[in-house]
Amino acid sequence: MNVAILGFGVVGSGVAEVITQNAEHIKENSNVSLKVTKILDIRDFPDSDFAPLMTKNFDEILLDDSISIVCETMGGVNPAFDFVSKCLMKGKHVVTSNKELVATRGFELLQLARENNVNFLFEASVGGGIPIIRPLSRCLAGNNVNEVAGILNGTSNFILTKMIVDGMSFADALKLAQDKGYAEKDPTADVEGFDALRKICILASLCFGTHVYPDGIYTEGISKITLEDVAFAESYDAVIKLIARAKKLAEDKITVMVTPCLVKNSSMLSGVSDVFNACLVRGDMTGDVLMYGKGAGKLATASAVVGDVIDCAANDKERKFFGWADEKKDFVASYLENETAFYVRGADADKAEIEKAFTSVQYLTRENQPDNEIAFVTPVMKESDFATKLSELKINLITTIRISDY
Amino acid sequence: MNVAILGFGVVGSGVAEVITQNAEHIKENSNVSLKVTKILDIRDFPDSDFAPLMTKNFDEILLDDSISIVCETMGGVNPAFDFVSKCLMKGKHVVTSNKELVATRGFELLQLARENNVNFLFEASVGGGIPIIRPLSRCLAGNNVNEVAGILNGTSNFILTKMIVDGMSFADALKLAQDKGYAEKDPTADVEGFDALRKICILASLCFGTHVYPDGIYTEGISKITLEDVAFAESYDAVIKLIARAKKLAEDKITVMVTPCLVKNSSMLSGVSDVFNACLVRGDMTGDVLMYGKGAGKLATASAVVGDVIDCAANDKERKFFGWADEKKDFVASYLENETAFYVRGADADKAEIEKAFTSVQYLTRENQPDNEIAFVTPVMKESDFATKLSELKINLITTIRISDY
Repeated sequence: MNVAILGFGVVGSGVAEVITQNAEHIKENSNVSLKVTKILDIRDFPDSDFAPLMTKNFDEILLDDSISIVCETMGGVNPAFDFVSKCLMKGKHVVTSNKELVATRGFELLQLARENNVNFLFEASVGGGIPIIRPLSRCLAGNNVNEVAGILNGTSNFILTKMIVDGMSFADALKLAQDKGYAEKDPTADVEGFDALRKICILASLCFGTHVYPDGIYTEGISKITLEDVAFAESYDAVIKLIARAKKLAEDKITVMVTPCLVKNSSMLSGVSDVFNACLVRGDMTGDVLMYGKGAGKLATASAVVGDVIDCAANDKERKFFGWADEKKDFVASYLENETAFYVRGADADKAEIEKAFTSVQYLTRENQPDNEIAFVTPVMKESDFATKLSELKINLITTIRISDY
Repeated sequence: MNVAILGFGVVGSGVAEVITQNAEHIKENSNVSLKVTKILDIRDFPDSDFAPLMTKNFDEILLDDSISIVCETMGGVNPAFDFVSKCLMKGKHVVTSNKELVATRGFELLQLARENNVNFLFEASVGGGIPIIRPLSRCLAGNNVNEVAGILNGTSNFILTKMIVDGMSFADALKLAQDKGYAEKDPTADVEGFDALRKICILASLCFGTHVYPDGIYTEGISKITLEDVAFAESYDAVIKLIARAKKLAEDKITVMVTPCLVKNSSMLSGVSDVFNACLVRGDMTGDVLMYGKGAGKLATASAVVGDVIDCAANDKERKFFGWADEKKDFVASYLENETAFYVRGADADKAEIEKAFTSVQYLTRENQPDNEIAFVTPVMKESDFATKLSELKINLITTIRISDY
């Protein structure tokens, strides 16, 4: 079966490599013969083994009826959305690693796939090489998922790991991540939580059957985290992680948010270090299930794309419909309806006042703690109540960080 | 679609419950209508809601053409093998949670399924509610798996956790596990590693494409582990876990073994506590992928069975072939060809002699260590070399435990 690749970047070139190098293994295991026949990129790659397959003209792929599967590995919404829609309408299966595309236009593309009786698969869009989307949709079959959460951004997790393990400052750890090629020159999407946000939107859409758009979802990054917070967390037997999560409320509503959290060392999520990712699914039948692995990297992500390609090829006649409905009004509740405990750090506060406001709190300590510095963990309460109580408390507030449920 | 259940024990009754209670949810998510119409058990359940469906006569299920999917949740090889073969030959899909059946007769049953153009699925046979078999076969599609390993027995992991966290002796922890219903009156299969062995055989068969039979595979249990070993492990920044593993050697060979291991606290496997299970897959493209969750429990395991049932029903025309070939001569190499580091504990040994034998070793210490007690970790070496060196060393050997690679 002939395969085309849109975008010859890190992932796209990996896909070409995996399909070509593992062709025999794939044939043996899955009984499908895959061949990359065209690759679209605006750049030239004269030295690549795949140079003869390169084209700058999208129509050469779209109008080529011998191509039945298209891998979109360009990233970004434009022109990816246009290209992908056209391929689906032409009756080609599309496999993508593009989380932004799925998070913002997934509903439309899934509908388009259904209308044209082809697959639109996106295992590689969340968690790189970790199988998440497929097991999740399988878990869902006999299970009601109540919560899905994860460490979904490798770059920010690498930075936090360096702060926790090596005592590096945020700025130094970010610099190291950039030097290692994990973080981009403009690291905003990674460190401010927007990349994790796109991924949790995809997972929430899948788990709760309604498209959850990233717009308007409460998102905090890790740039505000300091080594003082790391030290206080340690005294709480916890580490700070960037946790993306979506949770069913009692009514037919969910909350979705991305924020740093204190994660207890007894949690499996606390052990997810460096650039690794993990996704935790809390089902009514299965309890907690966690999937862990490399969340990024050329070959890991490419192999997830190729897994989807093989699925399309091996089951050409069977449709994989990840059905979810379009956005529903008020389905995503305000984050203020969420319930959680909080870590609060500040200065010049009176313990009696704190205890009056929050009833029972747990004070934390760290080495070299200034006399007037105070840090404590509140009981679990509604975010809105916490905000009110905190605003009424006399304290020179430095920071607040949520306590993870996971 | 009509479903029959063979065996109304913990898992079987869970399957009846999940299908009945979640029927609407299943219809909504997967567009299949499932109905349990017959249940085989030699016992009477007059008070069960499912009493009207009970039968003691297998033929009532076998000869009922309205039943297209049969769940085998009896356990044991006989009469399960006979029943399952007959159902497959009658053109019924079979889903099982029976690891002993799959580990010892899986190849034949998979062949029989193929010949009769039906499915034989067994997600629930390894890791209870954790999706393992399906993601693994998906991982395999674009990946060469080099190693698969895991904590696959919840009971022994619970016992080890109690020893590590609460300082309970093996005997007390076993007693507690029995009181909690985790361990059976005869706990041999759990604590001596035979249950984990069956599961790693299934995983190895799937990963390496050749049926690996449990017979003759090197298996050590945890009954020899003492609190002294736990303390020495702690000083090595490690915990003791029962690790089942299968690993490709350089040639077309694998080693398979189940033994306790010292697992470094930096490993994700070290965080797998209580009755939880985890399976780690090391692929050439994905790197390490880990799947974690409840390895047992009525509803978790039942929901895995139901997931497979839904798969059969939703894709009735499509075959899921987990193809693996029959046993290959010499494919499973002796465990003596394995390479690993060892923890050695003994008494009355001379450090100079130890260092002469093992070149560079790391000595471990514990509180209240008797003067003549010694514990050390060797470099990585062939098991056979280790055995030779150890037999030549003058030491009152107490125990040896392998060091985990994971």
